[in-house]
Amino acid sequence: MTLAATSPPAAEPLAALQALVGADMARVNALILERMQNEVALIPQLAGHIVASGGKRLRPMLTLASARLCGYEGRRHVDLAACVEFIHTATLLHDDVVDESMLRRGTETANAVWGNQASVLVGDFLFSRSFQLMVDVGSLEVLGILANASATIAEGEVRQLATVSRPETGIADYLKVVEGKTAALFAAACRIGAVIADRPRAEADALETYGMNLGIAFQLADDVLDYSARQADLGKTVGDDFAEGKVTLPVILAFERGNGEERAFWQRVLGQDGREAGDFRKALALLRRHDTLAETLDRARSHAEDAKRALRSFGDSPVRAVLADIADFCVDRVY
Amino acid sequence: MTLAATSPPAAEPLAALQALVGADMARVNALILERMQNEVALIPQLAGHIVASGGKRLRPMLTLASARLCGYEGRRHVDLAACVEFIHTATLLHDDVVDESMLRRGTETANAVWGNQASVLVGDFLFSRSFQLMVDVGSLEVLGILANASATIAEGEVRQLATVSRPETGIADYLKVVEGKTAALFAAACRIGAVIADRPRAEADALETYGMNLGIAFQLADDVLDYSARQADLGKTVGDDFAEGKVTLPVILAFERGNGEERAFWQRVLGQDGREAGDFRKALALLRRHDTLAETLDRARSHAEDAKRALRSFGDSPVRAVLADIADFCVDRVY
Repeated sequence: MTLAATSPPAAEPLAALQALVGADMARVNALILERMQNEVALIPQLAGHIVASGGKRLRPMLTLASARLCGYEGRRHVDLAACVEFIHTATLLHDDVVDESMLRRGTETANAVWGNQASVLVGDFLFSRSFQLMVDVGSLEVLGILANASATIAEGEVRQLATVSRPETGIADYLKVVEGKTAALFAAACRIGAVIADRPRAEADALETYGMNLGIAFQLADDVLDYSARQADLGKTVGDDFAEGKVTLPVILAFERGNGEERAFWQRVLGQDGREAGDFRKALALLRRHDTLAETLDRARSHAEDAKRALRSFGDSPVRAVLADIADFCVDRVY
Repeated sequence: MTLAATSPPAAEPLAALQALVGADMARVNALILERMQNEVALIPQLAGHIVASGGKRLRPMLTLASARLCGYEGRRHVDLAACVEFIHTATLLHDDVVDESMLRRGTETANAVWGNQASVLVGDFLFSRSFQLMVDVGSLEVLGILANASATIAEGEVRQLATVSRPETGIADYLKVVEGKTAALFAAACRIGAVIADRPRAEADALETYGMNLGIAFQLADDVLDYSARQADLGKTVGDDFAEGKVTLPVILAFERGNGEERAFWQRVLGQDGREAGDFRKALALLRRHDTLAETLDRARSHAEDAKRALRSFGDSPVRAVLADIADFCVDRVY
């Protein structure tokens, strides 16, 4: 039995990124553990739960790899990668409260175990911790980038609230949701790598463009995964977005192209408590009829190409190759 | 009819503070309005609601007055006062979600009008806005002070969660809750006035000590107000803490001194859904029997004295006199 048989080819770029930044990432994980300690026991308990179920750690790895791409040799990238992960973790805690989610990656959510109150407050704590750590790093420019990203994330999340149960949401409006709730942190995570390395603004801009497009590709692929059998392999639940009445690109496209009856279907099933047995299967059939999962993936792939294009201003290097492959990975993981 | 007849004597120090910083405060209010604007309409709607119902604006006025006490003549104190108010507003939004409050100062809470989801996310937005504004001000030291205060507030709120329904909470533990959830922001709001004025560390420390003790006095007086007829005059609801099973100092003292039957009463009525008609009246009678409202006020007054003592290192001035009177006001408003 070969390695290739146990880890599907799509995951190879992720393994390459992990290998590239593994030593730094071990420091990041140690720092995260250290900084979430508190004499109020519930804080490390709850934070530990969400951090442990935290998945791939893609965002902090992007900060580490971006810094490496820019030739950075200090250790501030480790601190900032931890900041990025703390912001991400805080938003996950608040997201799960907002979505009333009971499961995340097959594990009970923090709000399911400790209640909404603790999740809101420990989210606030981790968010504050992130800013404390940034202050220790001491770069006002980095503080500005991550404060802006945090505001943009919250803005994107509020924007998303207004789209729930509304399949008539326009594509442009939806892409603003995606740029805010997901891509802004990817973009900031990459940009700060260039900033701490004191590289010219053009390089910081290029890394931000890379991160922004990577984030959009990542989210659109996630939207497809929610309607995909592949999702179950990743330890996630299929149909979460659907069950929550969340409007994503595959649905928006199917609604746009649907006839009156189909549109009425989407309005009903995405409305509050409008779902019946068999609705999810019918939704899947409509997405297939209008081929909107494939089109969403095409758009994801196009953003992945934009991400790779943004890397061209950097000289050829193993780090650049890994970052380029990660853009493909964000889309390929759907298969 | 004289002015004194319409505004009770206890409110005079507040009016004096308002007169002292009124011009700056108008700038703070304009800045708050400007910075809460957003093309996502729900953000200014919801933020406007909480800002409008925002009460006395004591915290930002403390930043303005502290800066004035330190001879500061720039305009960064205006920006920072807005930061302080944004942090306070964000915590109010999250508090009302955590407490499931439907009314704040006689007005429907944001979560009652727009739901918990929007309140959590707009709270996150305002918190991020605060950090963006701090970055514009450009002082890493101030950023550190307010990031630390934010983490301490969240820590205090989590600590409080663990005391709900537990009248056996110790006095020392409860004072840690108060220092975190309330006094830390008062302390930071005052300290930053000295920091932007580039005053010696001893002056910053003195203002922090003033703010910390003022905050504790303020919260302990609030605890008493929740069991006081005077509360209704201030547009607040009597018995909110009691109804939420919140353990405050008057209750902790009554529990400590109570006999077995009384302790069983407190355990029951503060427990989840344990309250019956007549319980609040009986609770009031127990607080009176052990004189714990008066003792809580004595402790508040003692912290107000500590606050005033901390101001002594500053030369005699009208600003210092107003700040000293504000310490008395925090306690006297109970009468």
